Amino acid sequence: MNIIASNKCHGGYWKRYQHFSNSCQCEMTFSIYFPSGYQGSYEFQQAPQSSSLPALFWLSGLTCNDQNFVQKAHVEQAANQFGFIIIAPDTSPRGIEIEGQDDTYDFGSGAGFYLNATREPWAKHYQMETYISQELYAAVVEQLPVDHARVGIFGHSMGGHGALTLALNYPEQFRSVSAFAPICHPVTCDWGKKAFSGYLQTAAEALRYDACELIKQGKRVTALMVDQGDADEFLAEQLGTEALIDVCQQHKIAAQITMRPGYDHSYFFIASFVAQHLAFHAEQLTS
Amino acid sequence: MNIIASNKCHGGYWKRYQHFSNSCQCEMTFSIYFPSGYQGSYEFQQAPQSSSLPALFWLSGLTCNDQNFVQKAHVEQAANQFGFIIIAPDTSPRGIEIEGQDDTYDFGSGAGFYLNATREPWAKHYQMETYISQELYAAVVEQLPVDHARVGIFGHSMGGHGALTLALNYPEQFRSVSAFAPICHPVTCDWGKKAFSGYLQTAAEALRYDACELIKQGKRVTALMVDQGDADEFLAEQLGTEALIDVCQQHKIAAQITMRPGYDHSYFFIASFVAQHLAFHAEQLTS
Repeated sequence: MNIIASNKCHGGYWKRYQHFSNSCQCEMTFSIYFPSGYQGSYEFQQAPQSSSLPALFWLSGLTCNDQNFVQKAHVEQAANQFGFIIIAPDTSPRGIEIEGQDDTYDFGSGAGFYLNATREPWAKHYQMETYISQELYAAVVEQLPVDHARVGIFGHSMGGHGALTLALNYPEQFRSVSAFAPICHPVTCDWGKKAFSGYLQTAAEALRYDACELIKQGKRVTALMVDQGDADEFLAEQLGTEALIDVCQQHKIAAQITMRPGYDHSYFFIASFVAQHLAFHAEQLTS
Repeated sequence: MNIIASNKCHGGYWKRYQHFSNSCQCEMTFSIYFPSGYQGSYEFQQAPQSSSLPALFWLSGLTCNDQNFVQKAHVEQAANQFGFIIIAPDTSPRGIEIEGQDDTYDFGSGAGFYLNATREPWAKHYQMETYISQELYAAVVEQLPVDHARVGIFGHSMGGHGALTLALNYPEQFRSVSAFAPICHPVTCDWGKKAFSGYLQTAAEALRYDACELIKQGKRVTALMVDQGDADEFLAEQLGTEALIDVCQQHKIAAQITMRPGYDHSYFFIASFVAQHLAFHAEQLTS
């Protein structure tokens, strides 16, 4: 893990790292907030002396890299309050050459959809599911002062989809989950159809990358918090919030899904409610 | 004033405007945060019914436009607490064609230095002093629900220089002032020398655009708050903090100049202490 930036903020530190990802077969970049107040080492190391801190993975949306959340969400004070380490990965493989990777904002670079691609030419690099849930997860849990029993995940839009599906598929890794304006039912919207038909070989494979379908299949999370702006420009066409509300009711998932009047799809919305999400995760991860 | 963006954040609204500036003879863009809780109109209008809110002008640094503070400073909660309207202007004229305007990051576009240029070809457009202190100031005080007796100014780096010099030169307009990592003594540093020799006809003109020189000349502010990171990469060569400390001591200016261990020159530093600056302004503007 090579540190490429370090900035003190609210007494803690944002650090940005590059490393070669075996899953994605390329250099990947991610950022971590180390909260203030912790007395041990804030570095990746073999066998850290402490494993006391809770951690949250943040997954960003289409067009983002690891920096959007770092710069705009303003999570630091809440992270300090609850002692969370926050890990913000990139949204796709980078620095590779695949024809068409940069043609549209919603497929290829910046649009990895947190899945493992099975269709060529994407399959060699686009293994974001394994990258987040196995490779980066293992580095964080094994080489940082993190309590593996207190790791949660949250995200926004495409990253909200990622958080929901990874929490449903990997409940042992991610013990709490929340999302801002997630793509709740991607097999039914244009963003999801484009991504799944491009990255996957069969429609059947897509069913494990759709939160509503996973719940119908019997996958479960202990609880779920979702915030959604009612002025969100993507709500009607892409997000499928009603489908998630319905499936959570049908399957008795403890879901706290709140419509927020006047809020849109931007990080202004995320910044407004991020402290409440951290409080939710802190409560889930201590109970 | 044409609204080009509006985003709800923490119950208030960031709105972004474009207008033709008579001072700068071009279209200028600025952003305003309207705090939550206020019940009247949040629009520019002739003869607003209320003039109850305090306001702060924020001046950004080199390379910035009006969006850096909006996206990264996270001022909203403190603005709501104290009821501040916050105005974030751009840092230079835009959309014009002057040879060399985009050649370097510290002169021309994004580097207006909050002065009135007297040297051609800059003089026609680069009138940021008049733009901020007269034109935009008048629009805010006359067309928004702002109490003209409770208007302050603050800024960062080049914008810290702007805040200090405008507060010293226009004490009736700006009744409180603070700065993050300001260029305190620009006539002695490379940034200032380049700007002043490029925009101004004579060295004598520069003396009214240097906070230390203005204080030596007898200009005064009631009080002054400055925060400075001791890990700031520009501290040694450009910022002249020691000169400001010395001149404030010599001239008995009530200056609260604090070195912040480990903080750098970035918006991570600004976000960490912006709430304390708003508390300082709120206190200054009520006493």
